[in-house]
Amino acid sequence: MESPIKISIIGSGNLATQLGLALHKEGYLISQVYSRSQKSAALLSKKLKAEAISNLKKLSTDSTIYIIAIKDDAIESVAKQLKLKEKIVVHTSGSVSMKVLQKSSKNYGVFYPLQTFSKERQSNFKTIPICIEANNKKTSTTLEYFAKSISGNVKRVNSEQRKKIHLAAVFACNFSNHMYAIAEQLLGKDKLSLDLLKPLIEETANKIKNARPSKVQTGPASRNDKKTMDAHLKELSKEKDLQKLYKLISKSIVTTK
Amino acid sequence: MESPIKISIIGSGNLATQLGLALHKEGYLISQVYSRSQKSAALLSKKLKAEAISNLKKLSTDSTIYIIAIKDDAIESVAKQLKLKEKIVVHTSGSVSMKVLQKSSKNYGVFYPLQTFSKERQSNFKTIPICIEANNKKTSTTLEYFAKSISGNVKRVNSEQRKKIHLAAVFACNFSNHMYAIAEQLLGKDKLSLDLLKPLIEETANKIKNARPSKVQTGPASRNDKKTMDAHLKELSKEKDLQKLYKLISKSIVTTK
Repeated sequence: MESPIKISIIGSGNLATQLGLALHKEGYLISQVYSRSQKSAALLSKKLKAEAISNLKKLSTDSTIYIIAIKDDAIESVAKQLKLKEKIVVHTSGSVSMKVLQKSSKNYGVFYPLQTFSKERQSNFKTIPICIEANNKKTSTTLEYFAKSISGNVKRVNSEQRKKIHLAAVFACNFSNHMYAIAEQLLGKDKLSLDLLKPLIEETANKIKNARPSKVQTGPASRNDKKTMDAHLKELSKEKDLQKLYKLISKSIVTTK
Repeated sequence: MESPIKISIIGSGNLATQLGLALHKEGYLISQVYSRSQKSAALLSKKLKAEAISNLKKLSTDSTIYIIAIKDDAIESVAKQLKLKEKIVVHTSGSVSMKVLQKSSKNYGVFYPLQTFSKERQSNFKTIPICIEANNKKTSTTLEYFAKSISGNVKRVNSEQRKKIHLAAVFACNFSNHMYAIAEQLLGKDKLSLDLLKPLIEETANKIKNARPSKVQTGPASRNDKKTMDAHLKELSKEKDLQKLYKLISKSIVTTK
């Protein structure tokens, strides 16, 4: 029997958890899980039948791939502590340069899954686009093969494209979620529940599966209905920040048309 | 056999079409469809086995309920032309005052379905929240009964609440859709497709079915990651309007936390 490929996971957060679970399910051997917190490392490694470590010096050197799935601003300092010779080292960030890994190993890259993760909510990796990039062809081929073993949607992108994708994802995901949060806040003041808007939110996201968002834009700004926009601005008169936001987004919709 | 309730629909747009289809399916008799354009009236009335009219003077007076489903800014002028005595007249708008109907009939109200509609995309009214309001108790009871015959989610709201709901819906639906549109625009400049972000958009909308949006907020602003935000602002340096929008929404996320 072929021995399974060994993976080490550095990190124990939302992405590390979901990616670890997907790899484990796919038959990969997760060798070690590192976290600064021994407790967090233990919690995830138990699920993955891996060893828990909280000291990078204990990182074994016999894995095939090392996945750094930690906060963006911690990647560089962790990478500096790795001396993995020719093993493949990747980080999972949309915004951090691949080059921060160049002293960790001769073979490095990026393995960026385009999804938002929660520890509790199981992710279906099969449909998650994974953007990969590597510092050489051989690593790129291995990474592509690896990524395709868990996702049906793997794409090679360069650093410039990854930056654009990450920025676009901030608008499409983080900012749209904030629009939901504002809606909830506005309703809450009148003791109304966001449940009222959930079918609408779902349909808005569904609509663009087969249509360009700019083509299905609706609402007062989209028809340049100044009367309604003025009424809304008046409604927001006590919340200057939201009023400013309403104005700016509406203006952006009007000029996009 | 009990004769079915007669409905007249004033309008032939997205909402008029989907509501008409839902009522027709439920067994209501759609008596007439009015549109300024005889062609549009004919197109919808054919689907609903109704009479098409393009002159309000031809509006029959024997329907039980008259539904005005037209653009917000046209409701008042159409309402002025209606003399329906005691028949129930409603409009379907989130933002227009109920009082614009007070000269159309003694019994009037609002029938506001919280959804975004397309002519081509069939809506499932069963799950669409319908907000109702009426000028008297009897009309309110009739409207509630009527709304409940097509939706499992009917709520009585007053004018103030309806205004709040509509404003919140603009954020949750129109503005989030615009965030998708901006994402597509940013990707398009690099010949990348929005398809890459569709699983992410879907998951973002799904996540809030069982969680408060502010609790599941992710992204650079949510963790106040200034380095990434600065990189994004630099990326947007040639698009001042988007840069301004990025700054303002990020600030709003930071201060919401």
